[in-house]
Amino acid sequence: MFKKTENPMVIYDINKEATGRFLKQTNNSNRVKEAASLSKLSEECEVIITMLPEPQHVKAAYSEIVSGLEKKGGRRTLCIDSSTIDTFTSQQVSKQVEDVGAKGKGGAMIPIDAPVSGGIMGAEAATLTFMVGSRNEEEFELAKEVLQHMGKNVLRCGGLGSGQTVKICNNMLLGATMVATSEAMNLGVKLGVDRKLLAKIINVSSGRCWSSEVGNPCPNSIEGANVPSNREYSGGFATKLMLKDMNLSLLAAKKAGCTTIMSALATQMYLHGCSENNGLASKDFSSVYKIISGEK
Amino acid sequence: MFKKTENPMVIYDINKEATGRFLKQTNNSNRVKEAASLSKLSEECEVIITMLPEPQHVKAAYSEIVSGLEKKGGRRTLCIDSSTIDTFTSQQVSKQVEDVGAKGKGGAMIPIDAPVSGGIMGAEAATLTFMVGSRNEEEFELAKEVLQHMGKNVLRCGGLGSGQTVKICNNMLLGATMVATSEAMNLGVKLGVDRKLLAKIINVSSGRCWSSEVGNPCPNSIEGANVPSNREYSGGFATKLMLKDMNLSLLAAKKAGCTTIMSALATQMYLHGCSENNGLASKDFSSVYKIISGEK
Amino acid sequence: MFKKTENPMVIYDINKEATGRFLKQTNNSNRVKEAASLSKLSEECEVIITMLPEPQHVKAAYSEIVSGLEKKGGRRTLCIDSSTIDTFTSQQVSKQVEDVGAKGKGGAMIPIDAPVSGGIMGAEAATLTFMVGSRNEEEFELAKEVLQHMGKNVLRCGGLGSGQTVKICNNMLLGATMVATSEAMNLGVKLGVDRKLLAKIINVSSGRCWSSEVGNPCPNSIEGANVPSNREYSGGFATKLMLKDMNLSLLAAKKAGCTTIMSALATQMYLHGCSENNGLASKDFSSVYKIISGEK
Amino acid sequence: MFKKTENPMVIYDINKEATGRFLKQTNNSNRVKEAASLSKLSEECEVIITMLPEPQHVKAAYSEIVSGLEKKGGRRTLCIDSSTIDTFTSQQVSKQVEDVGAKGKGGAMIPIDAPVSGGIMGAEAATLTFMVGSRNEEEFELAKEVLQHMGKNVLRCGGLGSGQTVKICNNMLLGATMVATSEAMNLGVKLGVDRKLLAKIINVSSGRCWSSEVGNPCPNSIEGANVPSNREYSGGFATKLMLKDMNLSLLAAKKAGCTTIMSALATQMYLHGCSENNGLASKDFSSVYKIISGEK
Repeated sequence: MFKKTENPMVIYDINKEATGRFLKQTNNSNRVKEAASLSKLSEECEVIITMLPEPQHVKAAYSEIVSGLEKKGGRRTLCIDSSTIDTFTSQQVSKQVEDVGAKGKGGAMIPIDAPVSGGIMGAEAATLTFMVGSRNEEEFELAKEVLQHMGKNVLRCGGLGSGQTVKICNNMLLGATMVATSEAMNLGVKLGVDRKLLAKIINVSSGRCWSSEVGNPCPNSIEGANVPSNREYSGGFATKLMLKDMNLSLLAAKKAGCTTIMSALATQMYLHGCSENNGLASKDFSSVYKIISGEK
Repeated sequence: MFKKTENPMVIYDINKEATGRFLKQTNNSNRVKEAASLSKLSEECEVIITMLPEPQHVKAAYSEIVSGLEKKGGRRTLCIDSSTIDTFTSQQVSKQVEDVGAKGKGGAMIPIDAPVSGGIMGAEAATLTFMVGSRNEEEFELAKEVLQHMGKNVLRCGGLGSGQTVKICNNMLLGATMVATSEAMNLGVKLGVDRKLLAKIINVSSGRCWSSEVGNPCPNSIEGANVPSNREYSGGFATKLMLKDMNLSLLAAKKAGCTTIMSALATQMYLHGCSENNGLASKDFSSVYKIISGEK
Repeated sequence: MFKKTENPMVIYDINKEATGRFLKQTNNSNRVKEAASLSKLSEECEVIITMLPEPQHVKAAYSEIVSGLEKKGGRRTLCIDSSTIDTFTSQQVSKQVEDVGAKGKGGAMIPIDAPVSGGIMGAEAATLTFMVGSRNEEEFELAKEVLQHMGKNVLRCGGLGSGQTVKICNNMLLGATMVATSEAMNLGVKLGVDRKLLAKIINVSSGRCWSSEVGNPCPNSIEGANVPSNREYSGGFATKLMLKDMNLSLLAAKKAGCTTIMSALATQMYLHGCSENNGLASKDFSSVYKIISGEK
Repeated sequence: MFKKTENPMVIYDINKEATGRFLKQTNNSNRVKEAASLSKLSEECEVIITMLPEPQHVKAAYSEIVSGLEKKGGRRTLCIDSSTIDTFTSQQVSKQVEDVGAKGKGGAMIPIDAPVSGGIMGAEAATLTFMVGSRNEEEFELAKEVLQHMGKNVLRCGGLGSGQTVKICNNMLLGATMVATSEAMNLGVKLGVDRKLLAKIINVSSGRCWSSEVGNPCPNSIEGANVPSNREYSGGFATKLMLKDMNLSLLAAKKAGCTTIMSALATQMYLHGCSENNGLASKDFSSVYKIISGEK
């Protein structure tokens, strides 16, 4: 377990505007401070959490983090990467962290992969899910102690890299069900059924899914709900990010020799949405409804 | 409201073995009796419930029912059709029932379409959902009084035919999510994640759907559960019935000019499963997992 | 063989404007005359050729034709239906014609199904293909004698109905390759290759198909050619007609238990094109390029 | 132009068995000799032709070739890469070759990308097509002079990398039409039409394509033809190679933001065929017919 400390939270981002804004929001409290570099940050901190867009960013960040870790004289450090990247790169980076630990004395470097699910809505509603890969149960418990402050569900998926694998399986399924939900809602509405009634009944029937219950893509199908489709698909989880995750899944499926025919098709729908003409790249991914309904 | 009566339940089926078996199961109680014909049955009964496989069967049955209704001198009769058929045929049959009512005096013939969702599992667990189309709220209440003895959810979807529309939208979505769930579960398992853990985590994340929670297609992913995938896909909702429903949806979508690309693809998967070589026609539709995983 | 006769061509259409226009085009020559009814027409003529949009129209027309045939006292009549309809209806109508023959004496009624391929372009270039189903080779020769005046290829496909079967197989393949060609041409153009060069090279390579050579969907990819894509997709074979044919194919495939996954997907593309928003129903089916390229 | 020389052909392969076999086939003629290394080979030769499976192999080979080129003192060398790889890697390698040329004096290093289409059948029938990217027309002519001894068509596609782009567009289209042809042939055969007749008629109609004419996937549909489907799909272009090309196409389409929905689906069919259970990885890609027809 970690001791409750008076140590401040140390932050770092190459985007200085972002860190400046955060410092302001926290009233420049002495509980938060900015590091001069990632290397410095990792020398100081007992727990490091990263969340970056692409594999190459994770690799670049960890080459600096590792150089900081090497100067710590073996002091135990928990390195949690919450980026969604491919399982392979995730395992490579974890290996680098482990290697520093092996060289150290009297302590250990603990790699954890912990991608997160739930999007901005999940973050706001505190219903985030962390999917965690760790070497063993004990190290998972150390990570959970930290992550539970950010998410309702902190779940161990297996060994190193398994967090990434479960994440892409989940998101691949989400991506496919969102398109399928769009088709079902659009068909019902076009055939004259009230959209609220349609959503309500599907949600107590066998068609129900997260995409029909929480993020229904059909505008105004869920009354008063804080759903992207109710606000012109602003906010939420961007189509381009869903496209990124779908492509990670297809890559993994190709390597594993797995057929993922529905997911391949759904990927094409998001790619189509992201085209310049359709312009849905930065809208919530449920805006695929506009493609299905023929508005785009 | 209906009065509690001592009248027996009257049954009819062209399959005499089926009615014989049912009479035996009910110990030839005087609470159940068999009608000589559908026409006779409809002359006698205040409430008629039909459930038949295809539009042509519904039409054939109702031509007999209507001839019975015409002899009732206008005594109010509730005609509930719980078959899953196309909206158009359903509305035609309802019209015939209405026409008898219009000719009668001092009473009315009340058409109701009320297809059902939930399958054999839903029936056993008393979690069936009736999707009801009716002319108005009052007639819906009359139908609900009867149907609530068979299902947990009795829901009004709108005017005549709307029950059918909502049913096919729901089942179309179910059919697509089942294939998508098969892909996600198969990918995770092939990449080395424990299947129970994978199902568990998806079920608290954004990939969750009926197909991952209740009818997970991956064998032994849900411990001890009464799920077709845990018993070689026996029982449940037959692939050939799902194929029938998917085709109803595509027909409706064609008429409505709606794109249903994922559903069209899922339909092909069920058609493929039903082929002689694959032999999954009578297995639960979640056996599509065998196609996706390459076992078939 | 038929004798060369001085008998005029007798025409009939429920659209009187169309027949009037045709009479005018032929200068009201006494080689062409209009019949008062289909029944009258079939009483008079030795060879009857029909070409109608949907199965119900063929059935309706043939119920009149048959009543004319019955009055002919067994005079041999060749009944060629060149509509593209489902194999089943085609065989039904052929049976009706045969039945009149069976009742007659000293002659025979000869049913022929002979749908046509090649579109308006094929008609103009005299490269139409007739796909003919007949009871035997001799009756096929009788039909060929007539049809060769309209098409370059008059080909026997087998027994009654086989013309229809081959037609839908051909058009299903055409429908799929047109979408695939659109994808390949669009990708090459977007990656900077000259569209004329791209078409030219594909056309001497293994990607070549009718859709790349004759009806290339990419505007200006075939210089000076009389191709719909070079004139804003006007003329040619309307998307709604291709959609009709694709649906005939899917219906046949469903009955035969055949998987047609690419064709099911292509069908959705044409359905999408026909939606009100996209407005491509009356454009040539190669306008699906606009969907693929994101212009629609 | 190149001068006719008495210089021998110099070969190199890391697989010494392959080079040994070739030397034997050519009777150890003094017209063919083996190089000690790729670097030595490139020092000696005026024209270098490479054909390798994956981008990483091309990069590795060219790092050796470039070190040989650097020792040539600027003697003009034509570097033709006939591998099918992604446009990006191809352009990178071409750049390396150009850079050597820039440093040299009195001569130039000429990069050419020239992937080939036509497969083993094309090679045997001398109908190969080279798709060539070059800096200008003159350098294309130099490459053509060499390549015309191996292929019937040597076609310039544009600047460096354009050969690769055209190749993947062509093969993507081929991959999609092969699956579509399988569907059409299977449907016709199941509906009772003679397979030879069906192929023959499609081949003079609008459904015709390379896959129906030259490589028809339906066994015995093309009499006596040297087609993989007539010999249990042995020989030809392996499914795993088609899968590789389809994935190159999808990668390019993703980068270009192009929708390639049919191709994405066809890719899944080849992936499915390559699975361990289906075992079609080393069979000709037309064996996808077995998947469509339900034999696999």
